[in-house]
Formats: sequence, structure tokens, C-alpha cells
Amino acid sequence: MSAALEPADLVNGATRLYGIIGDPIAQVRSPEVMTARFRKAGRNAVLVPLHVSPERFDATLRGLKALVNLDGLIITVPYKVRILAHVDRLLPTGAAVGAVNAMRREKDGSWTGDMFDGRGLVRGLREEGHAVAGRKVMQLGAGGAGSAVAFALAEAGVAALTLFDLDAKKAESLAARVSAAYPRMAVRAAAPTLEACDILVNATPVGMAPGDGLPAEFGRLDPALLVVDVIMKPPLTPLLRHAQACGCATMGGRAMLEGQADEVARFFSTGG
Amino acid sequence: MSAALEPADLVNGATRLYGIIGDPIAQVRSPEVMTARFRKAGRNAVLVPLHVSPERFDATLRGLKALVNLDGLIITVPYKVRILAHVDRLLPTGAAVGAVNAMRREKDGSWTGDMFDGRGLVRGLREEGHAVAGRKVMQLGAGGAGSAVAFALAEAGVAALTLFDLDAKKAESLAARVSAAYPRMAVRAAAPTLEACDILVNATPVGMAPGDGLPAEFGRLDPALLVVDVIMKPPLTPLLRHAQACGCATMGGRAMLEGQADEVARFFSTGG
Repeated sequence: MSAALEPADLVNGATRLYGIIGDPIAQVRSPEVMTARFRKAGRNAVLVPLHVSPERFDATLRGLKALVNLDGLIITVPYKVRILAHVDRLLPTGAAVGAVNAMRREKDGSWTGDMFDGRGLVRGLREEGHAVAGRKVMQLGAGGAGSAVAFALAEAGVAALTLFDLDAKKAESLAARVSAAYPRMAVRAAAPTLEACDILVNATPVGMAPGDGLPAEFGRLDPALLVVDVIMKPPLTPLLRHAQACGCATMGGRAMLEGQADEVARFFSTGG
Repeated sequence: MSAALEPADLVNGATRLYGIIGDPIAQVRSPEVMTARFRKAGRNAVLVPLHVSPERFDATLRGLKALVNLDGLIITVPYKVRILAHVDRLLPTGAAVGAVNAMRREKDGSWTGDMFDGRGLVRGLREEGHAVAGRKVMQLGAGGAGSAVAFALAEAGVAALTLFDLDAKKAESLAARVSAAYPRMAVRAAAPTLEACDILVNATPVGMAPGDGLPAEFGRLDPALLVVDVIMKPPLTPLLRHAQACGCATMGGRAMLEGQADEVARFFSTGG
């Protein structure tokens, strides 16, 4: 749908820069996804991959932040926690999750960071017509992605959230943190269950590797259940395939990425 | 002539990065000129503007050089001398001129720098069908651009080179340095003259500002004289306009920039 471009249309001396930092970097999708959004918004801006090595992380970040025409960074694996040392102001979701996946330069030169991994999932659900507020959610996985998703679901007003992780301490710790931030919501760590559950979310990596099975065994699923998987590749995980076979509505990681790109684009455009 | 592009064709996670550093940066043409060359060569690479502030020059450069997927830099005003501190290996022309306008990362991680400002002029002349070897040249201006041009003309085998600068010491110093590097060539500092001259080169800034006149008064020019101006904007300087009115062949700064881009693209592609 977008108009065809020449290189000169995409980058020139006045182009504003954004980057995504990570290690490795070749697999990331943000450069194309975000650059397309900048173009659509009529901005002369591009988001480029920035391969940062762990040994030189701090020196690299100091250099990048000193660039006068670099306005924002997306942060991916393994730097979402380590980046906190380079953020001047941490917004509430980033503070609650304890990690940041986007930061922007403010007019005063300071850097503001926040976490959008989970918000992308919520936005993706909304864009696909699924209500989130008031629903009851079973979430598998309480690691980095799981923490972001849990806080985003809480922020979006789910009525109840049950958290499971193979590492029970992780699930309990996340439940306690979410509960402290959203005291009126019913949050608990418990074994996987679909009793009184509207939405099942997989935030574990189970389903990424060839030969993976389901992240938990539930048998046949109620077709009224909405099943969400944060995994990007493969697009159709064993869990989503099983859910579709049971007649459930599903959403995969790609919709979450699109939702996240929308959220981050808005964050970048509202700096000041 | 180039195929139409989508943003996803121009930048993705695997894109190799190049940059141009300078202050200011919005006016530079290298991002579009070099990115188009990378595309033409079938490379997934982009050259972006990098606005570096003088106060944070060294920290910024340390950070940029630490980026694993950044393969080269073009250096423009005011950093062509200051960058020397960040170059591990200086090629002969860069060493002779005492300045660098391009550097590349080698396979061992070290950085090699060289000066292409003058070579672009020589390549531009050749591409427009003008021989350089054996010709006699009058050059106006012995500053930064003038030094690069003088060494490139010497490297290209001109028979004689006369240098003039309003600052006579500059012209004398440059003549001495070129003579030391190319002892068989006739180099001298002298007042502007077109006696026994095939090519007149303006390497002064006279002609850039509105209202500027000629960099030197020669009266009517011999139509056999080739007149070259390094100034990019305006494309038709008072000197070039006068030369064309006299029936002379001319070459402007744009052709020099194109020639320089070809030389730098070759330099970037031959790292190792």
C-alpha cells in the first residue's frame, strides 16, 4: 500500500535516527516495521539495527546517546535490564517490570525509558476486536516477557490473573509485584487451570523449538476461550494449532509485535 | 533508473551500517549518494547522517567504533583532522594531506583511514573525459580542500602544479609538502597565472556566498583552458559562469562529489 521509494526518499542529511540495540541483531524486525511507521506518519526518520557487544555495552551506549540526531532506541535481548543504567527517567510500567524496551531523548537532552512488550499484546488484542478489561486470564510464564505481559494486562484492567511458571518462585514473586501495583485486582500464582478463565496466554518459550509440544496440558479447550501466544516464530505454535482445532479464537506473536510497534511509535512521537 | 523500493527493502535487521559524521549534518549529500551506490552493488547497507557535537566528539567516536555492524565512516567538516586520533592505520594520501575523510573497519577490528576529497576531483575529470596526467595546473586555495586536491593531482601525474593562496605561507607550505612526496613534479607557490596552464582549479570558498565574485582576476580565458570548481553550491559559480562564457570546458563540485563517492565506495568494499 505504501508508495514506492528511492534511496534518496528514505535517508538524507536531515534524517532523524532511531536504533534497535541487541546481540545478536540480524533477526530483529523493528527496522522495517518502525521505519514504515515513520514514513506513514510523514516523518523523515529511519530506525537502524545497532549491534552492541556485551563487552563494550556502556561505551557504545554513551556514544549513541551523544549523537545529536539520534532521538530514540528500542532495546532487545539481552539488554532490557542492563539499559536501566542509561535511562534518566523511568516511567511507571518500566519501573514495575524492572526492564525497558524503548527510550527516547527529551528536549532537555535527558532519556526517558518505558516497557512496551506487554502493551503490544494488549493493543494487538484490542485491534483484533477482543476486549481485555474485566476478563479472567491464565498466564503461563513469569520471566522477562511474562512480567511485561502481566503488568500490561493489569494496566488494561483484567479482572483476575493467574500466573504459572515452572519456577514457582518466579510466579509468586511476579504475582506479589503485580498485586502491590494493582491491589484491587485478583492476582495469584497457581498451577495451570482454565477454570473460570476467558483468556489463556503463553509467555513461555515452549513452542519455539522444533519438536516442542504444548506449554501445559489442558486437554480439549472450550471454544469460548481466547488463546494468545507471544512466540513470533513459528507463527503457528503447537498451542495455537491445538486451540484452532478446538474452535478457539487465537492471536500470535506477530500481532503483538505490530501492536507494540504502534505503542512505541506513539511513545517516540510524544517526547518533549 | 533504480528499482522502486519499500522501506523493508532498504533497512532490516541484517543491514550493514555506514555513517557520515559532521557538525552541522543536515546539508550533507552522502547518505543518499552512498546508499544508492550500495544498493546498485547489491549490498544490504545504508549510510546514515551522524550529528556529532564537538564537546562529545571522542566519546561519540568510541561508541560508534564499538558498534559491531558499523563498517565505515565518512568524515566531514569540522572533523577531518580531529578524526586522526581514532584511526589505527593511515594510508599514504591521508598521511600526506594530514587529514582523513573516510575510514573503514578491517576484519581484525582496526580502523584504516584515507583522504578522498581530491581523488574525487580527479575521478570526476576522468569520467568526463578529461586527461589529467601530464597537464599543467593552476590551483587557487591551499587550505584543507586545497591540500587534498593538490596531492590527488600529484598522485594522478600532473606535470606541473602552481599553488596560490591569499595566505602565502599556506601555499608555500603545501608546495613544499607536495614536492617532498612527489619530487619529480614541478610544484611551486606563486601568484595566480594562466601562463602555460591547461587546467584552472578553484579550491577556495570564493563563489559560495551570494554576491561573491571570481577567486582571481584573469580577464578573458583561453577556450582551451579547463576550469574546475570544488564548490558544490551554487552548482554554477561566478568562475564557472565566466569560464563557460569564454567557451571553456568546466566541471563543478557535483561531479567531484560523484567521483569521490565512487572512490569511497571502492575503499569501503575493499576492507579486509
